[in-house]
Amino acid sequence: MSDPLADFADLDLGRQDRRGYPEAVYCAGKTPEQVRLIAEAVSGRPDVVTLFTRAGEEHAAAVLASLPDAAWDPEARLLAWPPTVPPSTGGLVLVLAAGTSDLPVAREAWLTARYLGREAELVVDVGVAGLHRVLGKLDLLRSARVVVVAAGMDGALPSVVAGLVRAPVVALPTSVGYGASFGGVAALLTMLNSCAPGVSVVNIDNGYGAGHLAAQIAEPA
Amino acid sequence: MSDPLADFADLDLGRQDRRGYPEAVYCAGKTPEQVRLIAEAVSGRPDVVTLFTRAGEEHAAAVLASLPDAAWDPEARLLAWPPTVPPSTGGLVLVLAAGTSDLPVAREAWLTARYLGREAELVVDVGVAGLHRVLGKLDLLRSARVVVVAAGMDGALPSVVAGLVRAPVVALPTSVGYGASFGGVAALLTMLNSCAPGVSVVNIDNGYGAGHLAAQIAEPA
Amino acid sequence: MSDPLADFADLDLGRQDRRGYPEAVYCAGKTPEQVRLIAEAVSGRPDVVTLFTRAGEEHAAAVLASLPDAAWDPEARLLAWPPTVPPSTGGLVLVLAAGTSDLPVAREAWLTARYLGREAELVVDVGVAGLHRVLGKLDLLRSARVVVVAAGMDGALPSVVAGLVRAPVVALPTSVGYGASFGGVAALLTMLNSCAPGVSVVNIDNGYGAGHLAAQIAEPA
Amino acid sequence: MSDPLADFADLDLGRQDRRGYPEAVYCAGKTPEQVRLIAEAVSGRPDVVTLFTRAGEEHAAAVLASLPDAAWDPEARLLAWPPTVPPSTGGLVLVLAAGTSDLPVAREAWLTARYLGREAELVVDVGVAGLHRVLGKLDLLRSARVVVVAAGMDGALPSVVAGLVRAPVVALPTSVGYGASFGGVAALLTMLNSCAPGVSVVNIDNGYGAGHLAAQIAEPA
Amino acid sequence: MSDPLADFADLDLGRQDRRGYPEAVYCAGKTPEQVRLIAEAVSGRPDVVTLFTRAGEEHAAAVLASLPDAAWDPEARLLAWPPTVPPSTGGLVLVLAAGTSDLPVAREAWLTARYLGREAELVVDVGVAGLHRVLGKLDLLRSARVVVVAAGMDGALPSVVAGLVRAPVVALPTSVGYGASFGGVAALLTMLNSCAPGVSVVNIDNGYGAGHLAAQIAEPA
Amino acid sequence: MSDPLADFADLDLGRQDRRGYPEAVYCAGKTPEQVRLIAEAVSGRPDVVTLFTRAGEEHAAAVLASLPDAAWDPEARLLAWPPTVPPSTGGLVLVLAAGTSDLPVAREAWLTARYLGREAELVVDVGVAGLHRVLGKLDLLRSARVVVVAAGMDGALPSVVAGLVRAPVVALPTSVGYGASFGGVAALLTMLNSCAPGVSVVNIDNGYGAGHLAAQIAEPA
Amino acid sequence: MSDPLADFADLDLGRQDRRGYPEAVYCAGKTPEQVRLIAEAVSGRPDVVTLFTRAGEEHAAAVLASLPDAAWDPEARLLAWPPTVPPSTGGLVLVLAAGTSDLPVAREAWLTARYLGREAELVVDVGVAGLHRVLGKLDLLRSARVVVVAAGMDGALPSVVAGLVRAPVVALPTSVGYGASFGGVAALLTMLNSCAPGVSVVNIDNGYGAGHLAAQIAEPA
Amino acid sequence: MSDPLADFADLDLGRQDRRGYPEAVYCAGKTPEQVRLIAEAVSGRPDVVTLFTRAGEEHAAAVLASLPDAAWDPEARLLAWPPTVPPSTGGLVLVLAAGTSDLPVAREAWLTARYLGREAELVVDVGVAGLHRVLGKLDLLRSARVVVVAAGMDGALPSVVAGLVRAPVVALPTSVGYGASFGGVAALLTMLNSCAPGVSVVNIDNGYGAGHLAAQIAEPA
Repeated sequence: MSDPLADFADLDLGRQDRRGYPEAVYCAGKTPEQVRLIAEAVSGRPDVVTLFTRAGEEHAAAVLASLPDAAWDPEARLLAWPPTVPPSTGGLVLVLAAGTSDLPVAREAWLTARYLGREAELVVDVGVAGLHRVLGKLDLLRSARVVVVAAGMDGALPSVVAGLVRAPVVALPTSVGYGASFGGVAALLTMLNSCAPGVSVVNIDNGYGAGHLAAQIAEPA
Repeated sequence: MSDPLADFADLDLGRQDRRGYPEAVYCAGKTPEQVRLIAEAVSGRPDVVTLFTRAGEEHAAAVLASLPDAAWDPEARLLAWPPTVPPSTGGLVLVLAAGTSDLPVAREAWLTARYLGREAELVVDVGVAGLHRVLGKLDLLRSARVVVVAAGMDGALPSVVAGLVRAPVVALPTSVGYGASFGGVAALLTMLNSCAPGVSVVNIDNGYGAGHLAAQIAEPA
Repeated sequence: MSDPLADFADLDLGRQDRRGYPEAVYCAGKTPEQVRLIAEAVSGRPDVVTLFTRAGEEHAAAVLASLPDAAWDPEARLLAWPPTVPPSTGGLVLVLAAGTSDLPVAREAWLTARYLGREAELVVDVGVAGLHRVLGKLDLLRSARVVVVAAGMDGALPSVVAGLVRAPVVALPTSVGYGASFGGVAALLTMLNSCAPGVSVVNIDNGYGAGHLAAQIAEPA
Repeated sequence: MSDPLADFADLDLGRQDRRGYPEAVYCAGKTPEQVRLIAEAVSGRPDVVTLFTRAGEEHAAAVLASLPDAAWDPEARLLAWPPTVPPSTGGLVLVLAAGTSDLPVAREAWLTARYLGREAELVVDVGVAGLHRVLGKLDLLRSARVVVVAAGMDGALPSVVAGLVRAPVVALPTSVGYGASFGGVAALLTMLNSCAPGVSVVNIDNGYGAGHLAAQIAEPA
Repeated sequence: MSDPLADFADLDLGRQDRRGYPEAVYCAGKTPEQVRLIAEAVSGRPDVVTLFTRAGEEHAAAVLASLPDAAWDPEARLLAWPPTVPPSTGGLVLVLAAGTSDLPVAREAWLTARYLGREAELVVDVGVAGLHRVLGKLDLLRSARVVVVAAGMDGALPSVVAGLVRAPVVALPTSVGYGASFGGVAALLTMLNSCAPGVSVVNIDNGYGAGHLAAQIAEPA
Repeated sequence: MSDPLADFADLDLGRQDRRGYPEAVYCAGKTPEQVRLIAEAVSGRPDVVTLFTRAGEEHAAAVLASLPDAAWDPEARLLAWPPTVPPSTGGLVLVLAAGTSDLPVAREAWLTARYLGREAELVVDVGVAGLHRVLGKLDLLRSARVVVVAAGMDGALPSVVAGLVRAPVVALPTSVGYGASFGGVAALLTMLNSCAPGVSVVNIDNGYGAGHLAAQIAEPA
Repeated sequence: MSDPLADFADLDLGRQDRRGYPEAVYCAGKTPEQVRLIAEAVSGRPDVVTLFTRAGEEHAAAVLASLPDAAWDPEARLLAWPPTVPPSTGGLVLVLAAGTSDLPVAREAWLTARYLGREAELVVDVGVAGLHRVLGKLDLLRSARVVVVAAGMDGALPSVVAGLVRAPVVALPTSVGYGASFGGVAALLTMLNSCAPGVSVVNIDNGYGAGHLAAQIAEPA
Repeated sequence: MSDPLADFADLDLGRQDRRGYPEAVYCAGKTPEQVRLIAEAVSGRPDVVTLFTRAGEEHAAAVLASLPDAAWDPEARLLAWPPTVPPSTGGLVLVLAAGTSDLPVAREAWLTARYLGREAELVVDVGVAGLHRVLGKLDLLRSARVVVVAAGMDGALPSVVAGLVRAPVVALPTSVGYGASFGGVAALLTMLNSCAPGVSVVNIDNGYGAGHLAAQIAEPA
């Protein structure tokens, strides 16, 4: 009663200590008011990085009402607080976007990895229809500790990349496409059936999950 | 009554004249005895090439009982009569098999194209996990009038090939794989969603259809 | 920074030389601003035909802002620049639309083939429920080097056409229908399972892909 | 205890009176011993026609042990007792099989209609890839009160037939095909989405159901 | 050019003579302007009943612009012209709606049967959760020549009805439901797997098809 | 005519006597006017609790027009009349919501159980990613006669809960999630395949059904 | 090393105390040797009822090698040890099998409920195609504390039963059927979408789970 | 001709140098004779570890014919040559098998990780139905650099584990289950939708892929 937050959420602010990574706030199924109350609750904990994912315009406004200095990336639908990217440790996280339309999801992965403490780079428009574009990035590809590959449509890029590098590949299917792409299912299946080993897959459009996992893989020893 | 063939089939021996290509006999759903009666019926028409597709051991024996000199390729499950490959006309049909397990289906496509009057070549084990294998065949790829690409699992090879050549690509998904390959559905979807234009798709394991279509595309002007 | 285009795209203007056909710009997943920047970038290359596909009203406005004389077909959601259809070479591309509702997709195929340099004709409302309509076009059908058949609902027309002509058939399923048509999946499956050989299939509503492929098949020798 | 039949079945011998058509015995999920006990139980009721459907070799032997004069059609996997086809009343039931492989299912429909009291004819190998074969049967088609059309693969025949006749069409998808036919699902979907009105659909391979329904439709006034 | 209708449609006004039933105009995929032109074209043929199905508000306005006296049923999204229901012949078509939400589709079936010349009755809210409601209509049910049963959710009503009557049952799945009803697929599957013989199925929400088929089944001898 | 309600509904007000629980009014497929007429009809029967489920804003207004004192919970989209929760009998119904986004559905279950006469408690945000939150509620969990567990995404919570308690678990999948959650299908499948016995499943987002069933399970002896 | 059981299993013999019901041994994925070792391990614990489910002939032999007096029901593929059914407490569990083919699964549910301490009855062949058979059992149906309804094909029986009784219904879909029954999926969906409240569903063919849940629901107060 | 291996395969023995990990031989789609020829070919390269995966009895015999000292694990269907496990470097790979039936796949992952140079441990029967079994291994879980979690049925274990550890989790769905587990699809979907971050997924039963990826993740810095 006295704590309206308790009516709908039980924040896990100890997760950073328990697991090494903080809990994120998935906005999509929450009302702006619920998001605002959570933002208020975390405002007293600047020691924990809080990411607000899948935030629409109204969610963003709600977060900014409580945390005016939060960083907001509308394309990736992500807010972060505190807003400063922490110093990076561990190996390089490289994020590839097969096409322009895969960019919002790729960007969510890239920002997540950076806010979780890794150095990260983002490369765009390297689809397999123009193979010279991938092959021209071989040195960069081979310098990464982990490669996140975002692709929709045929989802063929992770197989090609995994055949070229030593690092694990986190395949990130996107819902880009139409018809028999089934909202990303075609790309998802392609990635699950990669003929190259070293590929694992996250949910369709799950840029946050891909970036989080990449940060874990690229942890310093 | 007097014609047991009429009880189950009505052969279309005029198809060669009407459409330019003969009717094939799909054995999979027929009894060996039915196949034997058809073989007997075509034995009087050496002017028409008859292909018996998806022929198991017993189907093959039934064909050979009526047409002892028929050519039989057990791996492709194909019989042809008359057995001699006709002289080739038109452009080159190139058939790629992504992996060893795709070979039976690729071979069915290759033999079909040859029996329908085209020059055809077969290249094996050029999957995208070892891209140097595809790139090493660029000259051959670019000399073809049409490329048939057989692949299971992730089915990524047609996208890569179509990005490299001017010729149309007939994508031939195979049922090679397991788990979420769903008997070739994953490869089929990949191919339907190819990010490279110039790709069209036939049914899973339909080597005959791919070879037939390739022969039509590579027809002489 | 200095090149905002590089933040989201890496144009492949050499594709015409490498593959014989230019890259198209798929607008659906791009912002109007991204499309405008691409239109600006290609404005210096009138030697390459650029097609903008799946362009909504706002995408079209963005293209026309940079390329005011571009040709725009709102029904097909296609823009072309330079706007003049090039002189045609090669064989005839015939595009059939089974019903009125299949027309936008059929039109996209027809325009694509024409802008890629082929003679092309478009015939509408020839569904199998009134077979006399197809049979009345037999001479035209048999004069084509390739036939694109757009159909939704039962998707039965390509099977019927392929049984009547010598030319390859590019089956183009559309999302026309309701209920168990599953947005074009029923038509797609019908076409993949065609009992007539000589049929291959592109993605649902992929008029661009069908037209491109048809242009390749009908290339001059 | 004293009645072993009661442990697994409760025969509905009054169905003929209640609904005008007798209950059939679906053998597929029953043990031969269970089928034998049912055959024994109906042996005292020659006034009711009993059909045993989906009967394998062992089921047939079990029926014949109790009803030695039962009629058995192994291809249709059907037994009937009493074995004599009753005199026919009502309109003509016409059963079409698109291909040879659809014959067992078509035959089950044809026999069912006859044992339920209708005149019925069976025509085979009239697939849409050779349209002249259908068109050559127009008079017969137009003389029927109802047409059952069995087809696998693309399942396109019912749409074509329904566009040619006044009678209702019972579409009977079969599991004939491979790959993306998904055991008859492709044909089923084609039929559900028929662009010609006058088509309804029964379950895949449900020859009994199609024949039963046709008998009801063709009932005498 | 001079005939704008020819650009998108080829009306089949001879269908009434050829098949006994007129062609209907499926509005869903057409623009209001296209529908208006068709309405104009049929305005000279009052001898043929024309039904406009799946007509939204704008489609209806377009029809009424050309045919001001057309009958319009907004709930069924159906227009008919000429507006008068023709005199009925043949047997009774009975249409059941399992629940209130199934009413629009059931109504489309009921009106179609009436405009195609049959006597038809409509009964609502007879779902299986209250079996007494079905059982209370037994006499009416048994007086019908054919029963159309519209149901969404579990789609169980056709099985129950078919076990009670001698007449054929046309099962009409609706998209009523949520979650695992998958837009009517659950009801469709239930109906295809009916344990009672005498049931066939049309597409989800296809009230027009069900009514048309019922009219054919109930034709006078 | 004189009773507009009879045109679309046949209320089952005797269900309370026949089955012990009243009929609910599913608003989603009804017009506000239809809902209003039903509300009017039940206004004379305060002895029966009527729940209006899946009521949008307009449905709610329609109910309140006829039953101004009805209780309305907009989050659960539920109205109840008479508005007072009846005295509770039987065992405790415990409703868990795995995450904040599952709350509307969980709330529908919780309110339903209470209006059907059970004591019920609602606990929120106890997902398996923070297992300590579930384990901290063990005493409450073990005091329940039945536990309803609402979860989307991976739907893993019911398996975990069922391994901890003696009471039956009603698994309530929600459509919370994205991508390969397929609108709740992933959670539904998880729950159907629970490795812990004692779990049964209702339809996705079917809070009403879960609450109703829980009330039946927790009935007083 | 010294304990070969530990290489593949970690028995949970404390589950009876923790949850009130013992752990069962799912044989399907285990080797006979593994099952034998488990049987040996439980042989020292006659205080706990151990059920071996989905036991083939070889599994049964392996159990009987270690526990020669175990009770074995080959039709239900179930073994129980100690073999004596415990005295029953709580309410009546009623198990219905829609058809003969559903009997093995229904029997597994019935035996499970009895071995877990409930009184249970089994009724067979009460499918909805002959409604009089269900209606003839109304008194028995209404005396049960919980009803398990096993049905394949259309899976319509649980909806009908739930509309007739006050007790909760555990719907148990079976894989009985063919074609579009998809191995029980059609029945599963029907049950999930039941238009009658009071129905929840377990996995296809999960007789053990249904019986276990029913035992929990029918627990003494 | 002189090299029969070239007819079906093009070994990639340079992969170890190029990518750091050797190519494996997927036996499932190959004939024993093909496998034998490959084994012969690698016999001259003891510097490269060759794994033969998905090897049936006949495949194993074929490998052992050419490489008599190869190590063979029939349960995991894996052969390795040279047979000695190399010295381990990098972090600990921990492999969990939820149930006994998941053991073959888990074992394939465990052996793969070891042959690719990592320390690896295997823990069995830690399913979520008995949570104390997981919680009892917390120290071991938290000492791993990466955790592979093999689970079928509900596939809930990876979500639970990922909520407890800092290390990345490789979720490995298995085909263990029945009915609506759809051969592992249910578990796959659960894992893709994990509500705990840090989980990525490989194909169903892809123990080799999971072990390979885990080896990459646990590489020494």
